[in-house]
Amino acid sequence: MAYLDHAATTPMLPEAIEAMTAQLVRVGNASSLHSAGRRTRRVVEESRETIAGALGARPSEVVFTAGGTEADNLAIKGLYWAGHAATGADRVLISAVEHHAALDPAHWLADRQGASVESLEVDEYGRVHPETLRAAIERDPGRVALVSVMWANNEVGTVQPVAELAAIAAEHGIPFHTDAVQAVGKLPVSFAESGVAALTVSGHKLGGPMGVGALLLARGVDPVPVLHGGGQEREVRSGTLDTPAIAGFAAAVRTAVERRDENVAHLRSLRDHLIAGVRAAVPDVILNGHPDDRLPGNAHFSFPGCEGDALLMLLDAKGIECSTGSACSAGVAQPSHVLLAMGSDAVRARGSLRFSLGHTSTLADVDRLLEVLGPVVERARRAGVG
Amino acid sequence: MAYLDHAATTPMLPEAIEAMTAQLVRVGNASSLHSAGRRTRRVVEESRETIAGALGARPSEVVFTAGGTEADNLAIKGLYWAGHAATGADRVLISAVEHHAALDPAHWLADRQGASVESLEVDEYGRVHPETLRAAIERDPGRVALVSVMWANNEVGTVQPVAELAAIAAEHGIPFHTDAVQAVGKLPVSFAESGVAALTVSGHKLGGPMGVGALLLARGVDPVPVLHGGGQEREVRSGTLDTPAIAGFAAAVRTAVERRDENVAHLRSLRDHLIAGVRAAVPDVILNGHPDDRLPGNAHFSFPGCEGDALLMLLDAKGIECSTGSACSAGVAQPSHVLLAMGSDAVRARGSLRFSLGHTSTLADVDRLLEVLGPVVERARRAGVG
Repeated sequence: MAYLDHAATTPMLPEAIEAMTAQLVRVGNASSLHSAGRRTRRVVEESRETIAGALGARPSEVVFTAGGTEADNLAIKGLYWAGHAATGADRVLISAVEHHAALDPAHWLADRQGASVESLEVDEYGRVHPETLRAAIERDPGRVALVSVMWANNEVGTVQPVAELAAIAAEHGIPFHTDAVQAVGKLPVSFAESGVAALTVSGHKLGGPMGVGALLLARGVDPVPVLHGGGQEREVRSGTLDTPAIAGFAAAVRTAVERRDENVAHLRSLRDHLIAGVRAAVPDVILNGHPDDRLPGNAHFSFPGCEGDALLMLLDAKGIECSTGSACSAGVAQPSHVLLAMGSDAVRARGSLRFSLGHTSTLADVDRLLEVLGPVVERARRAGVG
Repeated sequence: MAYLDHAATTPMLPEAIEAMTAQLVRVGNASSLHSAGRRTRRVVEESRETIAGALGARPSEVVFTAGGTEADNLAIKGLYWAGHAATGADRVLISAVEHHAALDPAHWLADRQGASVESLEVDEYGRVHPETLRAAIERDPGRVALVSVMWANNEVGTVQPVAELAAIAAEHGIPFHTDAVQAVGKLPVSFAESGVAALTVSGHKLGGPMGVGALLLARGVDPVPVLHGGGQEREVRSGTLDTPAIAGFAAAVRTAVERRDENVAHLRSLRDHLIAGVRAAVPDVILNGHPDDRLPGNAHFSFPGCEGDALLMLLDAKGIECSTGSACSAGVAQPSHVLLAMGSDAVRARGSLRFSLGHTSTLADVDRLLEVLGPVVERARRAGVG
């Protein structure tokens, strides 16, 4: 099979597997005071230092979570609750193209917790313009509890002007959160230089294990916990620290960041070959997302006259694994909210596919796709749009 | 070292390591529709069936989480929010001896979400009497959103009359949650027979990996999510399913439940030897918890005239790893709320140690403790109570 779905999950790096499996055979709870506990605690703290160093953060700014979804929930609910308790702020400004892990917590706050959630519009490439954010804030700055705009989009790959947006929020003393799950290891991400208050990272999107991630939190940014209990992670996130996963995560972050330049060059060259080949095979295809300012491994297309799900299954039968753009756990084909926000109609949105490359991708993977794509699209077109 | 802290975390079973590492080298997101996604989904669903089968539940009743703390948070916050939205119920009845992962979410609901949290008193052994629960409910049954009483206590090992308690809640149609983290693999736990609405399990307490657990939820019991996002786990718990950890968790649950009888016999015999030996070495020691109705691997003592932390560190220096009873991540010695609720005074509570045995424990581990305990207690007594 040619696996072209690295944005959904990417194979673990050998360094990460090794670091993780070395811990699976050890015993120790990082909260225990005895020798085994202290040994385990050292593994956690060294991992924290590694991740902080690779991402331009202080070790004390790293809060481990069970993954990107939990980190987004902690940032959005936690900063909302903290801001609301402190000043009565009730506005949440969030881009229209966020991952569901950020959007859905915001919508829940609106439905159940009295928040006023406002969507930040994007242009045809999926970008939030700084003036859009400024205007939204300035309608009532004192009431804004937080702003959330992702670093790079998981579907169409568009990169946001995060530092510019964060600076506008900072002018008003508003905490700015960014979901950088797709960005770390692919783009230069420095927590300190970005000026954001909170940043989400996920292990399994960059070659680390599933079930682990982090929320980077700048000093003085104190979300209300989403998970209460034993008081781990400076009372921000309770639950036994998952030392094996944390060790694997740290090895993956270090490796992904160290090899970023060579990996990006490799991904870009494969990705550009893929885009050129898809355009040659399907002349009326539409490339979605920003033409230049996009993730190096992302190519996202609309295929006029096709159902994305049908294309996905036809390609799978030919040995090509890709995605319609969003993991749809219910199996119900909803048009992507990202494409709709970019001005696409529902029919075009439903006729879309994402190809995402990663550290194990090869030219043969891409060529395998290009070999079969033309006839597959023809066949999907004959089946038509349901 | 003699590791006598299995209640904090226990070594992974070889079966669990093998099942987990087999998945670490595969790629696939269980929400993806292509072949790799479907293969991964099968691993998750087979694991769900294994866990359900071992615990007397239906596969559809298993909701995977990142561990016991998250499962407790989901049960307590989620059932509170659901009940409150449906009927305006605002009472939370929770035993005084719960783990912080259950107590702290309840207290947060009281502090920030308008809940009325009432503590269920325990007797000198740490047990909640059924009449205590009945009286508490009947003060205003229509306002009770949920009841939470753990299956077996993590500090003193006392087993609760869970089925009797759950039946009383069921008479009033009130959802009953139990944290069974310490019970599974040590006591016969059948979800169906217990009659509880929600039951928490943790991977790393029974020989599975850290970072994974489950909340069993009876049909028709629908907590509001704590983590929103992609809609995994029937919209109850979003976040990429951690397939390697889930596979390891299932292997551990199956093995721990299959070998329960032989393991329990082994633990009981070691534990009784330990208790007899500790009493011989320290004649005025007090065994805490119920004399008979307790976890087979648990022995919890108060050592008059000693500081528990001092004992712990002195024993650690002699190669014995144990606990003061609760993992104290802040490093600040608070007297145990469990012992205080059982009627102990703060001085006695602070002079306590928990020894907890598990599947790798040996007679040599226990004898090593018994060899050094007398002189260590003498030395701690000379240092006195701070």
